[in-house]
Amino acid sequence: MHPYQTKNPDYEQEVRASFAQQSFMAYLGAELTAVSPGQVTIGLPVTAQLSQQHGFVHAGATTAVVDSACGYATLSLLPPGSEVLTTEFKVNLLSPAQGVKLIAIGRVIKPGRTLTVCLGEVFAVAETGAQKLCALMTSTIMCR
Amino acid sequence: MHPYQTKNPDYEQEVRASFAQQSFMAYLGAELTAVSPGQVTIGLPVTAQLSQQHGFVHAGATTAVVDSACGYATLSLLPPGSEVLTTEFKVNLLSPAQGVKLIAIGRVIKPGRTLTVCLGEVFAVAETGAQKLCALMTSTIMCR
Amino acid sequence: MHPYQTKNPDYEQEVRASFAQQSFMAYLGAELTAVSPGQVTIGLPVTAQLSQQHGFVHAGATTAVVDSACGYATLSLLPPGSEVLTTEFKVNLLSPAQGVKLIAIGRVIKPGRTLTVCLGEVFAVAETGAQKLCALMTSTIMCR
Amino acid sequence: MHPYQTKNPDYEQEVRASFAQQSFMAYLGAELTAVSPGQVTIGLPVTAQLSQQHGFVHAGATTAVVDSACGYATLSLLPPGSEVLTTEFKVNLLSPAQGVKLIAIGRVIKPGRTLTVCLGEVFAVAETGAQKLCALMTSTIMCR
Repeated sequence: MHPYQTKNPDYEQEVRASFAQQSFMAYLGAELTAVSPGQVTIGLPVTAQLSQQHGFVHAGATTAVVDSACGYATLSLLPPGSEVLTTEFKVNLLSPAQGVKLIAIGRVIKPGRTLTVCLGEVFAVAETGAQKLCALMTSTIMCR
Repeated sequence: MHPYQTKNPDYEQEVRASFAQQSFMAYLGAELTAVSPGQVTIGLPVTAQLSQQHGFVHAGATTAVVDSACGYATLSLLPPGSEVLTTEFKVNLLSPAQGVKLIAIGRVIKPGRTLTVCLGEVFAVAETGAQKLCALMTSTIMCR
Repeated sequence: MHPYQTKNPDYEQEVRASFAQQSFMAYLGAELTAVSPGQVTIGLPVTAQLSQQHGFVHAGATTAVVDSACGYATLSLLPPGSEVLTTEFKVNLLSPAQGVKLIAIGRVIKPGRTLTVCLGEVFAVAETGAQKLCALMTSTIMCR
Repeated sequence: MHPYQTKNPDYEQEVRASFAQQSFMAYLGAELTAVSPGQVTIGLPVTAQLSQQHGFVHAGATTAVVDSACGYATLSLLPPGSEVLTTEFKVNLLSPAQGVKLIAIGRVIKPGRTLTVCLGEVFAVAETGAQKLCALMTSTIMCR
């Protein structure tokens, strides 16, 4: 959408340090793959333990990675030492989360002093490398 | 809200069988604790691997259990052999998901042939047994 | 849900004064019918000018009244001179908004210093007086 | 997002005919300004009767036009004689809806046989012509 100015010269280091503290990301097997001001990408290899009853990735796992991507997209713009807290999100599940990997991209749409609004997209990557949008999130992040 | 009539005399067995196939629920440590027509409760013991950067349960884990609770509340009303698929949900995160356990309750608000709308609540249970509403979900479930 | 304590002894007067300034409520024909701490009810007579292409009340009109009901439910709890601003809402449309009147009830679910979360319900009232839940809102209100 | 193929050679005529039947659009003063396969634009001149208590356009009016834009973006792709029905939407209100005009753009993100998911944006146009994104909608439209 827009290029954003970060207020933190060490934004990438701060985002990576916070991500490393999210035990749940490690437990899911998620990896922080790219960090730029206002946009963060997280990869999630598809494994059997993430599945729901039809063998697709459970919407909760999909939500977890795109929520973290949106939260860190927000954190990447804030002054050093800030904290972020998701207050709400909505997810539309567009197609089955399947394949070899999910790629979650969180982007800031509207930065704010107190509240930041993000748009998150999750792509399902097939073995062939083909990508398909499988989930769309909008979320509000509180900044402290 | 309302008492609902189920179209499946073996609704509890069918819900429990499907829940057992959700590998992700087992991976999180979630347990199906109560099933009645149009309402399902799932318990999630709070463990370190579920946490985000502040030590609370990650919103993705909270969402996973309440999404499953809403999906199975829907399935509990449907004819034998039906399948459910969440098409969208929104979650408001009201207070930190912390304590010893989360209890997620999914309830059908509006059953339908094609789409069912559910309301989900997640309570955080403290060591004292005190419960606090920590998340509120509304979701749409597609029935097949 | 809960009984709430208001911080404004003149909450009803303040809510009614603000409602009277919402030109759009008057333009729709909406009336503020009940105000209590944390809960507000707005009635909307169904008229031809509110309709969408199938003759039902347009979702935008339904949303307008339940958004105002939630905003004023929030304002009813705040100190004198406060202001409220909706930051987001989601609406599930459960059945056609038709009949002689809509009744929108907004209730505070989680009051907060900065953000308050509300649940809103809209009932369609038939000529017989029968009521049917036709829309469900969750919303976040910012307080200033 | 994507270019979409419509199943209706007379999609524009059908969208315009249905829009003309939405009395509420005329009552608000909204105009259908552009129709292409999968994308529809509606303009809403800002008038005093649309305002909330701070003088901005009421979120219900903003929602009405972007909901109609998304619904007609969906209808534009469907076979002749189809009908659309919004089942849910979420709106994030990003900045005050003020100025001389609102422009609502609805776009299909994921077309489907039963359900279509749309993304809607509303821009507030200042007297200088400057545009600012003031609302973001995601919605699910049922097709019949």
